[in-house]
Amino acid sequence: MRDDSAFLLVAGTTETALIDGISAAGAAPDLMVHTPSADAEIVTYGEPITAPIVPVSPSGCPTPAVTTRAVGEVLDFRATIVDAGLARATSAPTIDVEGAPGRDVREATAVPTAQEQFEAARELGSNYPASDLWLGETIPGGTTTALGVLTALGEPATVSSSLPENPIDLKREVVADGLDASGIAAGDLAGNPLAAVAQMGDPVLATVSGLTVGALEAGTDVTLAGGTQMLAAAALVRHAGHDDDLSLATTSFVANDESARVDELATSLDLDVTVTDPGFDEASHPALDAYERGEAKEGVGMGGALALADRAECSMATVREQIVTVAERLTGDATPQMPDGGQR
Amino acid sequence: MRDDSAFLLVAGTTETALIDGISAAGAAPDLMVHTPSADAEIVTYGEPITAPIVPVSPSGCPTPAVTTRAVGEVLDFRATIVDAGLARATSAPTIDVEGAPGRDVREATAVPTAQEQFEAARELGSNYPASDLWLGETIPGGTTTALGVLTALGEPATVSSSLPENPIDLKREVVADGLDASGIAAGDLAGNPLAAVAQMGDPVLATVSGLTVGALEAGTDVTLAGGTQMLAAAALVRHAGHDDDLSLATTSFVANDESARVDELATSLDLDVTVTDPGFDEASHPALDAYERGEAKEGVGMGGALALADRAECSMATVREQIVTVAERLTGDATPQMPDGGQR
Repeated sequence: MRDDSAFLLVAGTTETALIDGISAAGAAPDLMVHTPSADAEIVTYGEPITAPIVPVSPSGCPTPAVTTRAVGEVLDFRATIVDAGLARATSAPTIDVEGAPGRDVREATAVPTAQEQFEAARELGSNYPASDLWLGETIPGGTTTALGVLTALGEPATVSSSLPENPIDLKREVVADGLDASGIAAGDLAGNPLAAVAQMGDPVLATVSGLTVGALEAGTDVTLAGGTQMLAAAALVRHAGHDDDLSLATTSFVANDESARVDELATSLDLDVTVTDPGFDEASHPALDAYERGEAKEGVGMGGALALADRAECSMATVREQIVTVAERLTGDATPQMPDGGQR
Repeated sequence: MRDDSAFLLVAGTTETALIDGISAAGAAPDLMVHTPSADAEIVTYGEPITAPIVPVSPSGCPTPAVTTRAVGEVLDFRATIVDAGLARATSAPTIDVEGAPGRDVREATAVPTAQEQFEAARELGSNYPASDLWLGETIPGGTTTALGVLTALGEPATVSSSLPENPIDLKREVVADGLDASGIAAGDLAGNPLAAVAQMGDPVLATVSGLTVGALEAGTDVTLAGGTQMLAAAALVRHAGHDDDLSLATTSFVANDESARVDELATSLDLDVTVTDPGFDEASHPALDAYERGEAKEGVGMGGALALADRAECSMATVREQIVTVAERLTGDATPQMPDGGQR
């Protein structure tokens, strides 16, 4: 990273994740509530230290936190966690932005605290001591709430998925129910991002958009590190009237997901897009192969971490090796690393 | 620092600090509630980023957070903040241990959450990925609650002060009122540390003692970085039945404070004591001179930071230069530094 760069990982929860079949960000729906808290510990410490699970998909694919942590170990940077509404304790240090877990998007109000969180995040973003800010996210169910926000804003309603087969019809059904419950139609909240995130979003989107607006107001460069959730955050920023330069850094897995149409939406939102291919097809390991099968794809800032590695001229072969090291540590095969990068 | 070292700064508040004349950890009693939150930002970012004050004593002496941050900048380590009961928001990332602000020690119960905090801290301490843990504290009014705990445990009732003239008679009076309110006499809670901290302590003491017990149980080396508050924490650990090796690292200002009798108490608690003299008499700057006059003396892990500098063979002249740099940054004369150590 540049000396003036900082990487914030915005972590939260939404009850939308409990809808059966909506997300692969956990081995089972009732375990997903732990995923962001465990991701925070993996990014901070290299493994969960008190969180009771290692987040994996139903097929066992480890969380993309592994990649963000691995790149951090190689480049010697650590993401700082922002608590945008965790539902379970984490032993990672977190910055508080008055977050609370989000409700099911099928309720009338999905994020009761949207305005307070947006404002707290905006203040943090405008005061954060960096001139180059990278923002990642971890929130199971987040592509569905992203679809909800995009739909409410009247943007093209396409999102990616952490599952190989995108359950897009289910997501559209959930969003339709949410619009009904909120008493609105698609596009009704164009130009009204706070209402869109409050009624159809999640607490991570409220926080990421607030951080971005605050940082842009302070003249800080912002890169949204992620896939379609970050496109929804960018849409919120644009609908708040901010047309500053804004970047998106995502993985080739999302960029190549035809159901997500990332390029089209990024162009319409005037984003500078960086796509990084970690070359997982050039190696073989369970932690890499699942991505090649279309699982996970992105999340926990993975696309941003890969872009930072590329910018630092770190080879993807080195990144892959460290990903395997971190993944094996999670399954008990290696030595944990210290928060400051030293070996235990 | 050694690669396997970690430095945790335990930050909290007690309403005991509002007693007039009891503490110099703020320009005025009503500002002290901000001190630990601002200290956390100074240690993390090099200056307050959203906290509304720079903590200074009534005479303008800057907080010892300056020294801990300065050593961190020289040695390239950052203390991690543990929120043991902050009363005001901080933009520093903090680890949550279910803390809540402490009440006035003259009430029957000073720390209603003592047991939960102790247990949460113990779990964190036993799982924290370090084999060498340094613990600092920031809590205005903390020497009075330290006196309360030492008295309740039946240990020699002597403490230092952040004021040049230790208001020890006032502290004894406050503690006597606290014992009365709790319906106990001096020494009644020997061997009962949880009751001592709940009735006569503060949330930082509950957390530091819990972290220490957990870490010792896991075989982690612990150094308590501070003055008489850390002696009270050590007393709590000893009264919990733990006789493992335990270290104290403090400043020459506390060690030379005859009212505190650090050596005597440390010996009786079987602590390995390191005293570091930063040689402030060899330079002249308002941020250094106040210490020579007996203000502040210690806090925010200052003695531990100095010991770490010494262990790394960093000269005290270098440390003093960086202290001046950080102090001038706080008063608007220099360039802030990034959380990861780079220059903005």
